[in-house]
Amino acid sequence: MERQDQNLAFMLQYENIAWFEDGKVRILDRRCYPGKIEFVTCTHYAEVAKAVTDMVTQSAGPYTAAAMGMALAAYECRDQSVMQQREYLKKAAECITNARPTTAKRMGQICRVMTEAAEEAWKTGSDVALAIRDRAVEANNSRYSKIAKMATYLVEQIPDHGTVMTQCFAETIVGMMLKEAKSKGKTFRIFCPETRPYFQGARLTATVCYEMGFDVTVITDNMPAFVLKNENVDVFTSAADAICMDGHVINKVGTFQIAIAAKYMGIPYFVTGAPDLVHPTVKDVKIEMRDPEFVLQAMGVRTAREGVKGYYPAFDVTPPELVSGVVTDLGIFCPYDLWRYAKEGASGEYEVVV
Amino acid sequence: MERQDQNLAFMLQYENIAWFEDGKVRILDRRCYPGKIEFVTCTHYAEVAKAVTDMVTQSAGPYTAAAMGMALAAYECRDQSVMQQREYLKKAAECITNARPTTAKRMGQICRVMTEAAEEAWKTGSDVALAIRDRAVEANNSRYSKIAKMATYLVEQIPDHGTVMTQCFAETIVGMMLKEAKSKGKTFRIFCPETRPYFQGARLTATVCYEMGFDVTVITDNMPAFVLKNENVDVFTSAADAICMDGHVINKVGTFQIAIAAKYMGIPYFVTGAPDLVHPTVKDVKIEMRDPEFVLQAMGVRTAREGVKGYYPAFDVTPPELVSGVVTDLGIFCPYDLWRYAKEGASGEYEVVV
Repeated sequence: MERQDQNLAFMLQYENIAWFEDGKVRILDRRCYPGKIEFVTCTHYAEVAKAVTDMVTQSAGPYTAAAMGMALAAYECRDQSVMQQREYLKKAAECITNARPTTAKRMGQICRVMTEAAEEAWKTGSDVALAIRDRAVEANNSRYSKIAKMATYLVEQIPDHGTVMTQCFAETIVGMMLKEAKSKGKTFRIFCPETRPYFQGARLTATVCYEMGFDVTVITDNMPAFVLKNENVDVFTSAADAICMDGHVINKVGTFQIAIAAKYMGIPYFVTGAPDLVHPTVKDVKIEMRDPEFVLQAMGVRTAREGVKGYYPAFDVTPPELVSGVVTDLGIFCPYDLWRYAKEGASGEYEVVV
Repeated sequence: MERQDQNLAFMLQYENIAWFEDGKVRILDRRCYPGKIEFVTCTHYAEVAKAVTDMVTQSAGPYTAAAMGMALAAYECRDQSVMQQREYLKKAAECITNARPTTAKRMGQICRVMTEAAEEAWKTGSDVALAIRDRAVEANNSRYSKIAKMATYLVEQIPDHGTVMTQCFAETIVGMMLKEAKSKGKTFRIFCPETRPYFQGARLTATVCYEMGFDVTVITDNMPAFVLKNENVDVFTSAADAICMDGHVINKVGTFQIAIAAKYMGIPYFVTGAPDLVHPTVKDVKIEMRDPEFVLQAMGVRTAREGVKGYYPAFDVTPPELVSGVVTDLGIFCPYDLWRYAKEGASGEYEVVV
């Protein structure tokens, strides 16, 4: 299986998925991208888990990293008996799954699918690590096809020469949305809140938009309501780290307050992604609280004096009443009726659509 | 007149008002405070205006700086005829007034009051520059008394062991609020959004709160809704750069979206300050758009790539429907009934209450 599908090459450039090769997993370090192009190289699955914990990669990146981490684990134990290898992969899956609490269910699902690929390889006697990597690529390609469909539905909601607000780095969907818009001859302005404390909006989303040839403006995270009010924003859109089946959206902290402001201003909020069978309700989601010290600096420079505390929820929860529509590969669903999506077409397999 | 009223010394420490002495105005550079203690020294009134434009001082600081700038102008022209001095002060007033568009009316008012002080000095033959400085100190002392009353009313709205959210650097009122709370034996937690792009919340507000012995936590500007939802916040409060007589509040950008979120969550928003006779309606206010490049960096480090645009409204407008009460020196007023405040006690003179 080719890693680079020609049609999707533009996306891989931005997505920079983790990649297993020659006993190593290389992950683009998005913490300093695009200022610096650096990679974290992992030679043990635990290093992959640690890279995810440390936010070397974000958005959908951790899911690809997880799959590649499983391939690496298979490589590490390649000379052992099948029974030992199975045990080794089990341990790896456990380690990788728990890299970040909010995404543990989804990560667990990916590790299970990769373990299935290993089981098949053991049966056929093929290279286990490469079989896992192939499976990860296959899953990503399936994901890209679905996201392309989402992009079509999303772009239909954006008027030509209109204005869109995003939140955080929506990875593939941003690229797909812009590609779809271009193919339809549509253009629009994009406002990207910078997304503290990691500045993914300023560093990553804005870069993708600019390189795709769109008019893109970065604002600080205290400006969305002002912009929604004064700049004729037509649509607020974000991806999601999870869309619970009860319509609650888990996404980068800040999404909630922009959605509240958008509702107040009468501007629709569209979340893109597949409703998530592993999260039947919002009660199944644990919001990750990260190292509070990190909010007391910006780009590595300390902002607050010693003694002042920090507080760092990585995500927030937007309730269905603030969600105008869930843009899926099967169309735009009402956030109160997501089980219909599951009935209509969810495959239940490794589907990370960010 | 003594600069340091013993009762108010604690505040001056934080407020670091501009000060005219020996032909110079020294202004604490709040752009780097508390990381570095540096002063900008001005030997011409135009340098004072430029310091205000460049945000060397913020919150109520510019108003004191304006008055001290007028004292400096009087010093500069001290050897000229009264007629020439009058002309010189007129030019200085015009220059200082327009240092920042959103506050032009208020600055104009201050310059007029300082010009009156000069007229009196010419009559009595006293030192004009010192007469202006005395008038500025007098006005500040009157301001402190009023703010002390506001603090009393505000603290009554905060439960003991409760939680407060602020926005930006509310200068004197924050210090007064904490002093009043202490004197009543009350304590509470304080959450300070960092207030991008200058980080006044992280650098200045949090420092005051910490030094006053309160439990203070800094969050990034995308976290207020999460904190309001999950941390039992009792009150959201801010000062204002202007409170229009029609109940619209002009304050640091971000206030609007926190007020929207607070309303959504059922949490009251109290703005402190005197309703502003020079701004009968919100239509009289011009929101200052600052250099957009400034939002593309943080603490001096570039965040977005070249080609990406920035956008920097310094303030936003919170409509009266989101304001639970206007906390004045005469009590808490309904934002729809602010002319009653004017009738009851506004003196109409230099009253900057931040």
